[in-house]
Amino acid sequence: MRRVLLTGATGFVGRHTIEPLVSHGYEVHAVARELPADLDSAATWHRADLLDGSAQALVHEVAASHLVHLAWCTEHGTYWESPENLDWAAASLLLVRAFRAAGGERAVVAGTCAESTSASLYGTAKDATRRVLEAYAAAEGLSLAWGRIFFPYGPGERPERVVPSVARAALAGEPVACSSGEQVRDFLYVEDVGSAFAALLDSSVAGSVDVGSGEGIALREVLLQLERLAGREGIVGLGELPPRDEPRAIVADAERLRQEVGWQPKVGLSEGLERTLEWWGATSLGRTR
Amino acid sequence: MRRVLLTGATGFVGRHTIEPLVSHGYEVHAVARELPADLDSAATWHRADLLDGSAQALVHEVAASHLVHLAWCTEHGTYWESPENLDWAAASLLLVRAFRAAGGERAVVAGTCAESTSASLYGTAKDATRRVLEAYAAAEGLSLAWGRIFFPYGPGERPERVVPSVARAALAGEPVACSSGEQVRDFLYVEDVGSAFAALLDSSVAGSVDVGSGEGIALREVLLQLERLAGREGIVGLGELPPRDEPRAIVADAERLRQEVGWQPKVGLSEGLERTLEWWGATSLGRTR
Repeated sequence: MRRVLLTGATGFVGRHTIEPLVSHGYEVHAVARELPADLDSAATWHRADLLDGSAQALVHEVAASHLVHLAWCTEHGTYWESPENLDWAAASLLLVRAFRAAGGERAVVAGTCAESTSASLYGTAKDATRRVLEAYAAAEGLSLAWGRIFFPYGPGERPERVVPSVARAALAGEPVACSSGEQVRDFLYVEDVGSAFAALLDSSVAGSVDVGSGEGIALREVLLQLERLAGREGIVGLGELPPRDEPRAIVADAERLRQEVGWQPKVGLSEGLERTLEWWGATSLGRTR
Repeated sequence: MRRVLLTGATGFVGRHTIEPLVSHGYEVHAVARELPADLDSAATWHRADLLDGSAQALVHEVAASHLVHLAWCTEHGTYWESPENLDWAAASLLLVRAFRAAGGERAVVAGTCAESTSASLYGTAKDATRRVLEAYAAAEGLSLAWGRIFFPYGPGERPERVVPSVARAALAGEPVACSSGEQVRDFLYVEDVGSAFAALLDSSVAGSVDVGSGEGIALREVLLQLERLAGREGIVGLGELPPRDEPRAIVADAERLRQEVGWQPKVGLSEGLERTLEWWGATSLGRTR
């Protein structure tokens, strides 16, 4: 039996990882701190807080063969330097150790492109967690991959982030102030991110794997596509916000995902943005900003 | 009031750190998992286990302005690749975070020369802990130094380690098989290690500081001095054990300790080895191997 424990299962990426795991034949045990009403019935749900030690008992009870660990603090605007990064680094080490002690065989843990592109506490804590878990996996014979997430977008993203903000403005026909948007980023539709994690888990690929499209695009192009797709040209105010001090280009190296895992994205940018607009249009948040 | 919380206070280095802290004017609150009978009365003692979360309440109760964190797993022979390194990395992050949250101002945490000289899980976990704590200290305005311990020796060292093994053999007049002892190491008498930590805490020096003598000596020279000092020439069997795969030379850079902290060792190698022999001679372990 292949049973997977999925943390962060109600998160942005987590919700889109359940279905692909089921398609690969896994029995999915999903963990979350709070269980909302609209739970995906394809998974067995467990309520546990990885930060208070209560998850340890659950890990032993579920005794999963596989682990996908996505949970981490992601509060918009504050998570870069939040002290909670220490809690999540600690919890991640203890989770993987407990999983292995309970007989676990293969784990995929979510990393971030910020590990190499930012000196933030968030990037440092993720990078340090990776270093320890890779040394631990080598010492214990655990099969471990580290999936570095770049820029997922799509249904369910936090409304304050840039793609949702502009999508909602476009739907409402309201002007929205943006930076000049010259920074080049690697956007991947969130369903593809979930599907990539499931494929990575189902492989035996070890070590760090970038989870991105491999193609960079200037943020301004994404925002202009959004207003065009919504039929609201002119609402995006490029250059109205000051530029932030951040790397000019952050693009994934998609070779390992394509060549070793044998996975590639299914949803192109135009289709992904169209679906994103549709989804925001169908929610109340899409009409009130 | 300057109150210091000292973890690992019953350990090899910890026991020799209490007195120097008191000399610097600190009120010392010492923490240990078990409280033995011969506690140093210069400190106020607390029983707490950093690994089970019970220490969090203690940290808030003591509300120390200063922290010296020495505790870590050190089981001879097994700690290099022990899964407990994950527990200690996690506990160290949570301890420093709790200390800061309770109003702590300055912390010194024990690192190890193995961070840069070994690919072990131990060295990796210590190094990762340092990276996260340094980023955390920068984000939170905490004053933090990281004291890298090299090769402490002296009273109270674990009897299985090389200096105690040879000291005990020399006292008993029994032959002892050793490697060729060509590896060059930086030995520092344990009282000096404790005194260096107290001086480092009492300074405002931040970042990594090597805690060593700055002088390398071949291990064979140390062992031959031991048999000479004990009047038992010939008992050390150099080359009778195979060499281990380890770096040829590991020597501290003592510049920061001397120049910035203004500290230097008080006990030279001959005197330190003599005191070590005396101490083992006065214990029952010194006469039975």
